[in-house]
Amino acid sequence: MPIYKAPVEDYLFVLHDLLRVQDLKDLAGFSELTNDLTRPVLEGIAQFCEDKWQPLNQSGDEEGCRLENGAVRTPKGFAEAYKQYCEAGWNKLASPERFGGAGLPGLIGMAAGEIAVGSNAALALYSGLTNAALSTLEVTGAPWMLEHIIPKMVDGVWTGTMCLTEPHCGTDLRLMKTKAIEQPDGSYKITGTKIFISGGDHDLSDNIVHLVLAKLPNAEGKFVDDLSSVNFFLVSKQNIDPNSGRLSHRNGVSVGAVEKKMGIRGNATCVLNFEDAVAHRLGSQSESKTSSAAGMSGMFLMMNRARLGTGISALGVSEAAYQNSAQYAQERIAGKPAKGSNQPHAIISYPDVRRLLIKQRAFNEGARAFGSWVSLLIEKQRNASEPDQRRRAGDLAQLLTPIIKAYFSDRAFDGTNAAVQIYGGHGYIRDNGVEQFVRDSRIYQIYEGANGVQAHDLVARKLGADGSRAYEAFASEITVAIESCEEVGLDDLSDALRKAAKDLEAAVEWVRANSGSTYDIAAASYDVLNIFGVVSIGLMWARAARVAHDLLKANRADREFLERKLVLARYWMERELPMTSTFLERAALGSRGLMDLAAAAL
Amino acid sequence: MPIYKAPVEDYLFVLHDLLRVQDLKDLAGFSELTNDLTRPVLEGIAQFCEDKWQPLNQSGDEEGCRLENGAVRTPKGFAEAYKQYCEAGWNKLASPERFGGAGLPGLIGMAAGEIAVGSNAALALYSGLTNAALSTLEVTGAPWMLEHIIPKMVDGVWTGTMCLTEPHCGTDLRLMKTKAIEQPDGSYKITGTKIFISGGDHDLSDNIVHLVLAKLPNAEGKFVDDLSSVNFFLVSKQNIDPNSGRLSHRNGVSVGAVEKKMGIRGNATCVLNFEDAVAHRLGSQSESKTSSAAGMSGMFLMMNRARLGTGISALGVSEAAYQNSAQYAQERIAGKPAKGSNQPHAIISYPDVRRLLIKQRAFNEGARAFGSWVSLLIEKQRNASEPDQRRRAGDLAQLLTPIIKAYFSDRAFDGTNAAVQIYGGHGYIRDNGVEQFVRDSRIYQIYEGANGVQAHDLVARKLGADGSRAYEAFASEITVAIESCEEVGLDDLSDALRKAAKDLEAAVEWVRANSGSTYDIAAASYDVLNIFGVVSIGLMWARAARVAHDLLKANRADREFLERKLVLARYWMERELPMTSTFLERAALGSRGLMDLAAAAL
Repeated sequence: MPIYKAPVEDYLFVLHDLLRVQDLKDLAGFSELTNDLTRPVLEGIAQFCEDKWQPLNQSGDEEGCRLENGAVRTPKGFAEAYKQYCEAGWNKLASPERFGGAGLPGLIGMAAGEIAVGSNAALALYSGLTNAALSTLEVTGAPWMLEHIIPKMVDGVWTGTMCLTEPHCGTDLRLMKTKAIEQPDGSYKITGTKIFISGGDHDLSDNIVHLVLAKLPNAEGKFVDDLSSVNFFLVSKQNIDPNSGRLSHRNGVSVGAVEKKMGIRGNATCVLNFEDAVAHRLGSQSESKTSSAAGMSGMFLMMNRARLGTGISALGVSEAAYQNSAQYAQERIAGKPAKGSNQPHAIISYPDVRRLLIKQRAFNEGARAFGSWVSLLIEKQRNASEPDQRRRAGDLAQLLTPIIKAYFSDRAFDGTNAAVQIYGGHGYIRDNGVEQFVRDSRIYQIYEGANGVQAHDLVARKLGADGSRAYEAFASEITVAIESCEEVGLDDLSDALRKAAKDLEAAVEWVRANSGSTYDIAAASYDVLNIFGVVSIGLMWARAARVAHDLLKANRADREFLERKLVLARYWMERELPMTSTFLERAALGSRGLMDLAAAAL
Repeated sequence: MPIYKAPVEDYLFVLHDLLRVQDLKDLAGFSELTNDLTRPVLEGIAQFCEDKWQPLNQSGDEEGCRLENGAVRTPKGFAEAYKQYCEAGWNKLASPERFGGAGLPGLIGMAAGEIAVGSNAALALYSGLTNAALSTLEVTGAPWMLEHIIPKMVDGVWTGTMCLTEPHCGTDLRLMKTKAIEQPDGSYKITGTKIFISGGDHDLSDNIVHLVLAKLPNAEGKFVDDLSSVNFFLVSKQNIDPNSGRLSHRNGVSVGAVEKKMGIRGNATCVLNFEDAVAHRLGSQSESKTSSAAGMSGMFLMMNRARLGTGISALGVSEAAYQNSAQYAQERIAGKPAKGSNQPHAIISYPDVRRLLIKQRAFNEGARAFGSWVSLLIEKQRNASEPDQRRRAGDLAQLLTPIIKAYFSDRAFDGTNAAVQIYGGHGYIRDNGVEQFVRDSRIYQIYEGANGVQAHDLVARKLGADGSRAYEAFASEITVAIESCEEVGLDDLSDALRKAAKDLEAAVEWVRANSGSTYDIAAASYDVLNIFGVVSIGLMWARAARVAHDLLKANRADREFLERKLVLARYWMERELPMTSTFLERAALGSRGLMDLAAAAL
């Protein structure tokens, strides 16, 4: 049976030693974030997920979801485990107090999210998407929605979905066919088919709130392939009385199918058919009601949150995979590691197995630190006292979001595959539970804009516009980390990071110099994203190394933990950062050679 | 529904333009290998596999194998499709004529193998392993086996397996527990449990011939953890009368379970229980019957063949995945590729999608050329007229076998994942059939010695001993290819290859210089293997580019095909070969930092 132990100690290190959240007095709610609060919260959700969710992970995958008489049945135990999770309040740690949440910073929500996913990715997704949906609704919903809908979602008794994709279009929203027709009472009726709707139907909650993209007709009453006609709507599975908030009759939303998927099989991925479904238009309350931007900005808000969530989810599965492979490597006996010994050893004695394990762990811990830092930046963007601080934090968070989504999911997938590799043939057998991590983690490279789209977002949008301001902020963070390592003689780390940062600088300069050449920028995007990714984790390792160095010097008791941080930091600097030179060399080729063939010749 | 079109034209290019097999007059059977023979053979198996095997690939995965009343049932249609394949003779193209085979060179067998796997990896494995087993039996079997067993296997009416792994040991054979006890009549009785036996039981054939590793007691009658006690045996599912070859009563082999696996689900992976099973000892007939080396050499013979087969199989699945993703990319409409255009385009217009497709295709075609060359080397090793030629070919084949196994399977897995990525969310849905390629191809990184073991084999064995002779031969092949490109002005290709070859040279020198340091060598092994891999494919692309260049100059009609070769060659040289510098940098670190942590700290 697979194991899972939530990385509570590592989160406490990240929160209190690395980010020192307890010292951020100017951020609302942060001064209370001492170990006295964070430890019991994280230990609480850890214990719950280890005890109640993780044991359902493999059985949920085996059983999957099924459609019975038009309703989706989730795997045995899911509904009960979901309810217990919400009743204990683990779903709403970071939800606003005014809606019934615990009001903790998003940073804690991220930690909770990783732990929930690490224990059971399919089950966690129902709650994760509900939180993304309610955050969006908070900004785009009408007052009656805030009053009657959001509190239900915060409590988890209603769940949420996002309905974007249609059979023939995903990324390109202009091609969307789902139509919305305004009704005399100001509501809308929506008709169309949406696919890949995670948690589109299930038996976990009383109601499901769908956030739906659909097109409005133009002035001539026609539906055109144009982004400006795409708007954002709320469609409830059961209709809701806006005055009382009570559920009434069933809305015109039905489940066309539940997809059979590669992984995340315990989460119901639905085809949803909307037939004259009652819908309410959403939009930023500060924007004109007729502005289509209201719809798109709502969607992007949700997407941004979901992108971070996707990266952190990938980390969660990667961590679970790592733990199992480390345990297996410690227990599996094979061969003698060195000449002269005739005693069989565990396979963890083999350098190539070590390489795989350290690679996994150095990514996981570096990513955890990086994701936490970006979560903190988002808090600062919202709540820092000075406008400059808010702007700087926002710049950085925007820049780094596609990196978390794409780089984390790519590396997490590699990590789950490394776990299978360590198991050898046993990894390929479903009963052993480790191949499930590969199948589950594979989705994160696709969710919320495939990773190629993330890379394009990075180079074309995030490094364009105000991008140089964002990049300069990032570069200055790297410089601080380099100097911080140098101060205490960690020169091997700082030298490696400086070298990689130069490659990053060169890549960014190349992007700027070639910004007029659409194809070149697009062709280089993936390599540029990889440079950002490996340097971002390197930045966190430089910071973590300095902290660990200082704490070791101060003789703190957790020496093994701190020494491991230094070993993992060195691993990353010595064996991962050097990749930047090849990435840069390749990026600088632009589209050379890639577009030479006729499409039909491939 | 997934598609598959066998790469017949590419094989004809490799055989007749690149390797020019029709000119190898001194190799037995090669002078007949003109296009008049190879084209109809390859087109024949291609059509059969496209029509009969490929349509069962997805349904076979869906249905899987099951154990009913002690016997394994394969998916619907498999038994019939297998029989038709054998009746048409596609299974025995490269089997010796004296046993009823078509007697074509192994090179043709390799092409047939790739095509069979590309159409249906699970089904092809039954036949592929039978061929590996019969080749081994040819060398290690007693005369009655050659007379009565091999012809049945060549006809495919009996199949073969290899039984090595036990629940607690795979790579480390010393730990094996299966016991063989000699009987008064010279036969043996074998008792033990073997796992992961591909095709261990099924309903495709009348009988199954298991080649089994088991231990003999030492002089004191004890079974010890020692390689020298491991021997190689034949155990038939139905006992065979050595005089008549007739099947008699059921032997003591039973199916303990059929594993549920990540992929290759149409192939029955069995737990086999041997209980006093009648066994016949195998051994090289030139070796002493009491020498345990006889058993081990037999096993290594089989493993070597299976390692090549594994690499080629990985290529087969990678090719199938590529074709589907290329078709999808040509058909899927999304977005506008360049500013100013408002016309939606197929996603193949996006440089990042191109990058993925070209990456897949450049690997597939390069690997096909490389695998074919190594197959040719094996023919030369056996049949070249001069001893020096035979030795040189053997050196090269030995050196390059672990690279085919490991590098091909790693890159093929990447390729299948690139295919899923191109499909986006649709790739994650089982019905679309592309995620199956990921699950199927994942096994090849594990089969026949996990890739880490291959890397160790390369650095510790293949580059040790007579390794420098083998490496020098390989280096001289590279030099010839470089010069051949320079002769016709393909300097960009030759320069890139020369640079990468220098990294390879440095890596090999590093391995030699550090050969005394077990841990360093082992730690560096994977990076060294990757250097060999990327340079090996680069070598083939240099050769292919020169050939394509010449044929274009000679105005051969297939211009698009030849021009694509040049584009793919440039891709490999520009975007893959530069990886060698990072691999080298990392290899040269040896085990630094990898062994610092206590095993329990991971």
